[in-house]
Amino acid sequence: MAMPHSMLKAAVIGGGVIGAGWIARFIENGIDVAVYDPDPEAARKIRVVLDNAERACSRLTAAPRRTPGTLTLHETLDKAVVDASIIVESVPERLDIKQAVYTEIESAATQNALIASSTSGILPSDLQAKMKAPERLLVAHPFNPVYLLPAVELVGGKLTSDETLSRAEVFFQTLGMHPLRVKKEIPAFIADRLLEAVWRESLWLVKDDVATTQDIDDVIRLGFGLRWAQMGLFETYRIAGGEAGMRHFLDQFGPCLQWPWTRLMDVPELDEALIDKIASQSDRQSNALSIRELEQKRDDNLIAIMQALKTNNWGAGRTLAIHENRLLNDNLLAQQKTSLDITQLIETVKRKVPDDWTDYNKHMNESRYLQCFSDASDELMRIVGVDADYLEKTGSYFTVETHIQHKGEAFAGQSIHVSTQLLAAQGKKLHLYHRLKHEDGRLLATGEHMLIHVSLKTRSATEPAVQVLARAREIASEHAKLPSPDGLGRAVGQSLG
Amino acid sequence: MAMPHSMLKAAVIGGGVIGAGWIARFIENGIDVAVYDPDPEAARKIRVVLDNAERACSRLTAAPRRTPGTLTLHETLDKAVVDASIIVESVPERLDIKQAVYTEIESAATQNALIASSTSGILPSDLQAKMKAPERLLVAHPFNPVYLLPAVELVGGKLTSDETLSRAEVFFQTLGMHPLRVKKEIPAFIADRLLEAVWRESLWLVKDDVATTQDIDDVIRLGFGLRWAQMGLFETYRIAGGEAGMRHFLDQFGPCLQWPWTRLMDVPELDEALIDKIASQSDRQSNALSIRELEQKRDDNLIAIMQALKTNNWGAGRTLAIHENRLLNDNLLAQQKTSLDITQLIETVKRKVPDDWTDYNKHMNESRYLQCFSDASDELMRIVGVDADYLEKTGSYFTVETHIQHKGEAFAGQSIHVSTQLLAAQGKKLHLYHRLKHEDGRLLATGEHMLIHVSLKTRSATEPAVQVLARAREIASEHAKLPSPDGLGRAVGQSLG
Repeated sequence: MAMPHSMLKAAVIGGGVIGAGWIARFIENGIDVAVYDPDPEAARKIRVVLDNAERACSRLTAAPRRTPGTLTLHETLDKAVVDASIIVESVPERLDIKQAVYTEIESAATQNALIASSTSGILPSDLQAKMKAPERLLVAHPFNPVYLLPAVELVGGKLTSDETLSRAEVFFQTLGMHPLRVKKEIPAFIADRLLEAVWRESLWLVKDDVATTQDIDDVIRLGFGLRWAQMGLFETYRIAGGEAGMRHFLDQFGPCLQWPWTRLMDVPELDEALIDKIASQSDRQSNALSIRELEQKRDDNLIAIMQALKTNNWGAGRTLAIHENRLLNDNLLAQQKTSLDITQLIETVKRKVPDDWTDYNKHMNESRYLQCFSDASDELMRIVGVDADYLEKTGSYFTVETHIQHKGEAFAGQSIHVSTQLLAAQGKKLHLYHRLKHEDGRLLATGEHMLIHVSLKTRSATEPAVQVLARAREIASEHAKLPSPDGLGRAVGQSLG
Repeated sequence: MAMPHSMLKAAVIGGGVIGAGWIARFIENGIDVAVYDPDPEAARKIRVVLDNAERACSRLTAAPRRTPGTLTLHETLDKAVVDASIIVESVPERLDIKQAVYTEIESAATQNALIASSTSGILPSDLQAKMKAPERLLVAHPFNPVYLLPAVELVGGKLTSDETLSRAEVFFQTLGMHPLRVKKEIPAFIADRLLEAVWRESLWLVKDDVATTQDIDDVIRLGFGLRWAQMGLFETYRIAGGEAGMRHFLDQFGPCLQWPWTRLMDVPELDEALIDKIASQSDRQSNALSIRELEQKRDDNLIAIMQALKTNNWGAGRTLAIHENRLLNDNLLAQQKTSLDITQLIETVKRKVPDDWTDYNKHMNESRYLQCFSDASDELMRIVGVDADYLEKTGSYFTVETHIQHKGEAFAGQSIHVSTQLLAAQGKKLHLYHRLKHEDGRLLATGEHMLIHVSLKTRSATEPAVQVLARAREIASEHAKLPSPDGLGRAVGQSLG
């Protein structure tokens, strides 16, 4: 899997919610996908998920996205898998169906292709039992929505090779995911065991009229769910133990295991009465939004949470940061190869406006305009050679002065981009001019900025490295031939009536 | 509980993690607290929690915080409770200890005081069994950290009056919490039943060497925990059912209840070997940070997540938004009463720099300077009468031009404030000048802004309401007597070498 993404081909068998989520993640990461699903509605259903995924991924990050992979639907399974190096199986959760699919796959796929099952709980040893080359099968269990959530459980069966698990681990990392190797195969692996426990206990609570579905959701999302989104169970409890640590917590909490705090010694019967109760409570709770709207709310919230955690370099935000750095580096490498055209304005930011960038006026808040300009300045800095290594060893540029003109409004979900003109690079100073435009070409704002080169150790002005200044001057001398920006050197309120 | 906060007095019996968390939330909300805890170390332990809480609450919101309540530690229980209108019991989880505390409370407290137990699981009917006036006892079960997490489970016993539950509900809402009325009392209520289920299943996973504590935490925080922080269990599964809804999901998922996806028909024995295993795995996972550092990470992440959800008006973010509006309105009312001194600069923002406002240069990102100025402009707009009602019916002000001078750096956790000078209010235009300072008085940045009054329906310039313009002109004419700001009307790079 060390080959470049553009050379990888994936096949996905089964285009349900999970299969389509995989397709979206592959395409987003520049991988061509061949799909087989006998459902005549498959193309339409996959499109719905891809639309949601495009909406979400375009808002998730300001890092340069990969050139999307292509999607091809095939009439037969063998055509879909024939030249794939990774084959994902996302068919219904029945062992006999899955085993039959593997037989078909093996008769058509290349010997070297990985085969990854999305099963939530069937043992890989059972899945691979009838295969000719069982060593290349593993479980890769993702979480819905697959195109956003980073976790994927990797589980090998008795016959799965270590090489298969290692290749899969590297592969899923390049998709921006965080693979978790499950050490022993058991039904439902790790996540679904925990989910199943909560699910069963919740069914009792609803059945016994202790709580409604809304009560249960509220106590999770306003209570411990906020802890779990960042630390999970054990790290949270470690804190509860105080300075005395985990052992102290266990000493305190241990006796509760003998208390009657669960009904899980028994399983509730999911009969018609209980199904009716849950379905009608859920309708009352969530009916104000359609499933599509709920999905978009969920995605917007996930994006906001992951971006929030990213600024703290924690949990899912850390996974996102690692992936964004990968994308930024790939982009820089690509630019170096294609030799950036410095006779034109440089496109430094291209993204969609996330929902949480808007304010009570229902448009993008003014501070987010400056965030776009700040990101654009960062990108220009990278282009002249201020990368992670330079930041570490030499210095950075700080903005000392900014002038913004607002020309139009931007709304959630709209595509915007920034083009940058390097006006001057003299000694410690960089003089930049950004134009923020809507994808239809309308100018939304301009930003004029003076930056000063500083040492990050002394926090005071220093000369930039020779090669950085040289590259900046080279760009500035080309950009000087372009038209001078509108409102350059303007002061606030100047010549306004 | 309809009386103003400044007249409420609270007593807290027991100053452990939960009791101290309650103390912090009361103080933050302007309520004086009397505390009794026989532990000679109580004062020191409470101080640690209050320091964490102050650090967190100062970063949580830019809304004006209430004047803090006072904290008094008492030598005896009766002195602590004598004039309290709400008494919180947070002593160890033993029925006999708690019942003895209630006897003491009842002999000293006023007849009308509410008594709220923080128990995680003991039935309120058992707690109140020996009380003289049992109708005023309820369980109010919060979540750690109490000063940040909004959920609180309210549970009445057989003898608890409806009035008690209603009074408690209103009271906890004014603390920025979201009370959840539990319909039937059962051991462990709602949250701890779910937590207990996950805990027991997790103990099996660790004991059986399927997963380490780190694996379990990662699969939660990189997987379903991100969903639960916003939607909980049922709303998430509703989505998984697709357009066919919850019933379809139940039809699909029902059979799993018969699968061997849990070991919860049995309870693992928490023997020395298992305690050792968990404690040492937890050390390997989390030892890089002290408990104090972990707590601060947790709080920073919670703040970032709640603020992120606030921008989407969802879940815990919605609870926060409601509370911030309450604080803003209280502040406006107080200003109207004390008649704001408009002969001086107006303090429009006062807050600490949240961790997630900093960037790779380890200082507050430039876009957050503009966010402070944007918040300052919003506050000035409220002062001249642009409130929610005005936004709905008349219009708003949009920024059309901005000039920022950076004079110094701001770092995470530092206290900053903005003072605002209204330079001119003419027709549709407002001309503002903000000074952002560190609490030690150092000037960090200035912002000069031109705003235009617009209709939020037509999105084009309109005249402001007469009373808004009049109030703005009144302030501007006073502010004209103050010294003219440094760098007014300056353009980027002007007179720089």
